[in-house]
Amino acid sequence: MSLDRMIDGVITKQNPTVVGLDPKLEYIPDYIKQDCFTKYGKTLEGAAAALFTFNKGLIDALYTIVPAVKPQCAYYEMYGWQGMKALHDTIAYAKQKGLFVITDGKRNDIGTTMEAYAIAHLGQVEVEGESYVSFDGDALTVNGYLGSDGILPLLNICGQEDKGIFVLVKTSNPSSGELQNINLYNQKSVYLTMGQMCEIWGERYIGKYGYSAVGAVVGATYPKQLEELRTTLPHTFFLVPGYGAQGGGADDVALGFDQRGLGALINSSRGIMCAWQKYGFAERDYAKAAVEEAVRMRDEIINRIGTIG
Amino acid sequence: MSLDRMIDGVITKQNPTVVGLDPKLEYIPDYIKQDCFTKYGKTLEGAAAALFTFNKGLIDALYTIVPAVKPQCAYYEMYGWQGMKALHDTIAYAKQKGLFVITDGKRNDIGTTMEAYAIAHLGQVEVEGESYVSFDGDALTVNGYLGSDGILPLLNICGQEDKGIFVLVKTSNPSSGELQNINLYNQKSVYLTMGQMCEIWGERYIGKYGYSAVGAVVGATYPKQLEELRTTLPHTFFLVPGYGAQGGGADDVALGFDQRGLGALINSSRGIMCAWQKYGFAERDYAKAAVEEAVRMRDEIINRIGTIG
Repeated sequence: MSLDRMIDGVITKQNPTVVGLDPKLEYIPDYIKQDCFTKYGKTLEGAAAALFTFNKGLIDALYTIVPAVKPQCAYYEMYGWQGMKALHDTIAYAKQKGLFVITDGKRNDIGTTMEAYAIAHLGQVEVEGESYVSFDGDALTVNGYLGSDGILPLLNICGQEDKGIFVLVKTSNPSSGELQNINLYNQKSVYLTMGQMCEIWGERYIGKYGYSAVGAVVGATYPKQLEELRTTLPHTFFLVPGYGAQGGGADDVALGFDQRGLGALINSSRGIMCAWQKYGFAERDYAKAAVEEAVRMRDEIINRIGTIG
Repeated sequence: MSLDRMIDGVITKQNPTVVGLDPKLEYIPDYIKQDCFTKYGKTLEGAAAALFTFNKGLIDALYTIVPAVKPQCAYYEMYGWQGMKALHDTIAYAKQKGLFVITDGKRNDIGTTMEAYAIAHLGQVEVEGESYVSFDGDALTVNGYLGSDGILPLLNICGQEDKGIFVLVKTSNPSSGELQNINLYNQKSVYLTMGQMCEIWGERYIGKYGYSAVGAVVGATYPKQLEELRTTLPHTFFLVPGYGAQGGGADDVALGFDQRGLGALINSSRGIMCAWQKYGFAERDYAKAAVEEAVRMRDEIINRIGTIG
């Protein structure tokens, strides 16, 4: 268990970024939506088909350029179980194209319930002796508020598989400090305390690059904290949201990397999905616009941090 | 927006409990499983059909006795989108029987993503001018680690509907103290700080009983903290897991109630779902066993706290 497969992809593609697949209907070109609504009606099925078709186009265009995609569960759950089928289909398609899939679910619970989430998103489920995969991502984002009882079941379940998790440490949103920035009796912040738990949880799962299977989510919008955490948590790989639309730039995210250009995977969702709208591309060129934006983002970061690995 | 409908049910049925619907295949009688596997194969569809059939039997037997049910998302997600369809069907069936449904998802995210979760679990989704419900619970459990950005979108979305949320404050598991019990620079614990945020978030959504739409999850396994929080958070209704299997008893949970017998809803999941196995009932009497256990639990708590309302 580790994040090595993900890091291999980052080095091979010389690209430390991940594309968020957070499809809202308003991001999707009309020709896709109309086609799906004609086939399945203006229904949850129709919407779910549009999400998957849109994603497929993005994946087909991006899989040689980026190492990973990050579907956000909420945007699929919003369209009911039909939407969850689109999540399943998206993950399966991305993996078939060799992409590393981070399922952004921020799941959290305890004991056997957390085990059920681990099985749902990273493992296999048994039905009377038959084995099935349910969503089958390569990594899952999780929330550590419940302590070790919410994390260890994931590590147990994934012990045999080459999979990992990302624990929320310092999130990118404006109000993230309300709890995360408070100093404890010992002068350490809540986010640093959570980060240090990641180092402990990951200690037995360190891969060939020195990073463990337990990563952390640290927002690009807080560069000072990103730098502090990079220094303090040497074995914890960072998933970094907040680049682009939320305000983080290349100088900010650079602080999340180590000397080898490893240690951080920078996410962009809307920036890439909606590039066709922002730059006035024709609808049918939405994937081409996504590629241009993904390349621009890659180059911007690589120019700043240098060759990776 | 409030928890008034839930509290109305508690008073009418004189029963401050909620039945957790966390169906694992091993809890389900063989005759149900075999029937479903014959119809749908030993597949995710077959498993999902067994979950729903099992739940339907429980709901049919319990809906006159308990005011609420609490399906735990993880046990449905484990069986893929097919399992999520069973979650949808379970919620719809329980609501049709007049039960208040708390979807236990512990969801968390920010901004438009949290809005998507709010729509998924409490609201309605638009598809080209058509409106659909996705999962449509009455309340959702959420995790507040991300601060207000993760909570306000729920309140906005549900502002028009009579729905509520329960924020994790002090959870029932052994390791809950790793983060939640740490004292901050101001001597207040993390869990108390989160609890006080619930009071602030709920301030504009206080219902006729004096409780707001923003409840809190507080475990029965920490009676001292339950008592402290009941005193400190006068407008926050508690969802209390940890009764029975996890070790909390009637004396413990009694500390979560106010003078009127309101303020807490005590959850039992395995205790009720698995009563037929524990007490050696015939398979086909699983729902009868659940009723006996639910009545026993109700009476045990009512004997301790007195008439409600």
